[in-house]
Amino acid sequence: MYAEIITIGDEILIGQIIDSNSAFMGKELSKIGVDVCRITSIKDEKEDILNALQEASSRADIVLITGGLGPTKDDITKHTLCEYFNDTLVLNKEVLVHVKELFAKYISAPISEVNKQQALVPSTATVLMNQYGTAPGMWLEKNNKVFISMPGVPYEMKGLMKDEVLPRIQKRFKRPYIIHKTILTHGMGESSIAEKIEDWENDLPQFIKLAYLPSLGRVRLRLSAKGTDEKLLLDTINSNVISLDAIIGDVIVGYEEDQTIEKGIGKLLVKKNKTLSVAESCTGGMIAHSFTINEGASAYFNGGVVTYATQSKVDILGVDADLIKTYTVTSTEVAEAMSLKVKEKLKTDYAIATTGNAGPTRGDGDVEVGTVFIAIATPEGVFSEKHVFSNLRERTIGKTVNKSLELLYNELLK
Amino acid sequence: MYAEIITIGDEILIGQIIDSNSAFMGKELSKIGVDVCRITSIKDEKEDILNALQEASSRADIVLITGGLGPTKDDITKHTLCEYFNDTLVLNKEVLVHVKELFAKYISAPISEVNKQQALVPSTATVLMNQYGTAPGMWLEKNNKVFISMPGVPYEMKGLMKDEVLPRIQKRFKRPYIIHKTILTHGMGESSIAEKIEDWENDLPQFIKLAYLPSLGRVRLRLSAKGTDEKLLLDTINSNVISLDAIIGDVIVGYEEDQTIEKGIGKLLVKKNKTLSVAESCTGGMIAHSFTINEGASAYFNGGVVTYATQSKVDILGVDADLIKTYTVTSTEVAEAMSLKVKEKLKTDYAIATTGNAGPTRGDGDVEVGTVFIAIATPEGVFSEKHVFSNLRERTIGKTVNKSLELLYNELLK
Repeated sequence: MYAEIITIGDEILIGQIIDSNSAFMGKELSKIGVDVCRITSIKDEKEDILNALQEASSRADIVLITGGLGPTKDDITKHTLCEYFNDTLVLNKEVLVHVKELFAKYISAPISEVNKQQALVPSTATVLMNQYGTAPGMWLEKNNKVFISMPGVPYEMKGLMKDEVLPRIQKRFKRPYIIHKTILTHGMGESSIAEKIEDWENDLPQFIKLAYLPSLGRVRLRLSAKGTDEKLLLDTINSNVISLDAIIGDVIVGYEEDQTIEKGIGKLLVKKNKTLSVAESCTGGMIAHSFTINEGASAYFNGGVVTYATQSKVDILGVDADLIKTYTVTSTEVAEAMSLKVKEKLKTDYAIATTGNAGPTRGDGDVEVGTVFIAIATPEGVFSEKHVFSNLRERTIGKTVNKSLELLYNELLK
Repeated sequence: MYAEIITIGDEILIGQIIDSNSAFMGKELSKIGVDVCRITSIKDEKEDILNALQEASSRADIVLITGGLGPTKDDITKHTLCEYFNDTLVLNKEVLVHVKELFAKYISAPISEVNKQQALVPSTATVLMNQYGTAPGMWLEKNNKVFISMPGVPYEMKGLMKDEVLPRIQKRFKRPYIIHKTILTHGMGESSIAEKIEDWENDLPQFIKLAYLPSLGRVRLRLSAKGTDEKLLLDTINSNVISLDAIIGDVIVGYEEDQTIEKGIGKLLVKKNKTLSVAESCTGGMIAHSFTINEGASAYFNGGVVTYATQSKVDILGVDADLIKTYTVTSTEVAEAMSLKVKEKLKTDYAIATTGNAGPTRGDGDVEVGTVFIAIATPEGVFSEKHVFSNLRERTIGKTVNKSLELLYNELLK
């Protein structure tokens, strides 16, 4: 049971958009035991699409295609599919009704000629209704291979995958079991982990693979087991996770597939019935955003301030202007004062504060580019750390966010 | 002059990471006139890598490869390259010295055996020194085709591309001209634009292609011209941009490749010598982040508050508790009060405020999921809008950010 993904669009090849659709499809297919063995991105060119379809179907049982289904002239996927399947486009009445309904509800304008064409589909295609947009999904077959075409708009593709594509694949194909287990660690480098767990890794059975996925001070370990005996796979994965925990348990944050350290913090705060606020200078709202993007953040996250300008630390937080004058705005003293002030103002139990210079030029604080101070206020007091991260702006901001979360997480574990 | 990109790693195929490296490489190659015609993502399997190398080099002149060069066992790219080139690994002394220096500077620990292996490279490879990490880049040739292997860590790959790969490609290959022009629009849908500019689009010469790149209420239009006469390409692109501006100039934000509406706002504020603050509830720090991720934001962005909990709107902004009680927390009145309060507290000329419910469940405000109020405070007063965006949390947050920025941008243009 092999699948391949083809994403169509010049904008992917010239780097104007990042192909996040493939990652979503890969993850969802993987969960139901479909092995994605290749992702190919190609141009909106007929020959390229025809070649990619031919090649992918020579290797895989299922070919998923996204992109090139919009109402505009540069979208040629549907016409090319017709050529590949030696088929013609016909008007699908159900889709036309749906397109008209969407226009009436959200656009409040009469349907245009261009949009009516969204209801044209190859005559042999099974139409997959798209609840979130005008372009329908299509399920086609040739020589016992399945081809599924979906629009490239991410939330439309996601809806079609969940509502239509995954259930149909599960019904149609018998699949082996593929089980993934992800272990999120923090604060230890990839090679240090590799050395610590070398013996454990060597003892893994052949049917389990280990991968290291490092990112800005966090490393995800992923175990993948594949086979026909689901119980054996599960038991072997679980016993290996237990033995891994005995070696590096102190740096393991969690085992959920989409586990993040901010979700871990959320769980711990809810469990302890405690609350959090943040005061951000150099991180500029990114820490607050990392909590509030998750459902249920209001249970523990009261809010925060983004005190980007030096004066704003005085104006909105009430940090002592003399303190800033004495120690400069990027200092341990100011970071700690920010965390204590925001904790008091927002009546929380914990607070994170950041102040530093992400660059590219020296700012008010006159410290070396990449220097950051992080303070954590707790019910008992306050502590802080100084770091020099990098001379790359986005990297310094990202590392500051991750280090702040790690410091709070460790504090909550105590 | 064709290039292909191969990204290696199971984590890409099972969707654990999104392949953003390809987008960066595609963009940079495109800028120097190299046409990227395919991106292929494959597993960390020897056979898959060998096949992909063979196939890509049968079509392209340059093959760029990322991933699989780390110090751990699951990284097999280097060994597979040796097999493909019928070569052996040899110790490169310069790389070893560099790895030792990195360890001394950042890790403060003796270099491990695993990390020493980073200095092994195929004997016929030209080593590309990696200033940001331990794994070197490699430049190899076979049958007049160039193969470039880089680590998959994004900032290491980016450094190698800029320092080594792009200059070497420019020196080695004669390239045609490829010119891209991006036009960022706001507030008009893809199909409405398509209908408005239909005649203009039909009149474009054969060597210019147009693409539509829609995202949450913004549409980017991209013109791509390819040929040998640089002046002709530039002149034709420019004259078409001028005629496009005459048709939809009112929704065009800018023409820079990396233009965003927040950068446009920044420019306008700096030009007017005005400042901005934000008060975010449902957007939770994302608006502040969208400004502060850009260099130079401190010239106009004073700061903001993330008043996530209802009570925090009273505690830190001083919004009248009775007002919240009377109108509920998700209301025009509260949004406007938030914007005026933050503008006053942070002494700015403009302010954005958001309050709403991104879901998935009804919150304190008891409005329908997806309902959002956006207020803009200006030197003259305040105005606000109500929107019902969607029942998808991330989408509603993203749309709220974009709509807020659009409202402020239009205000600043007046």
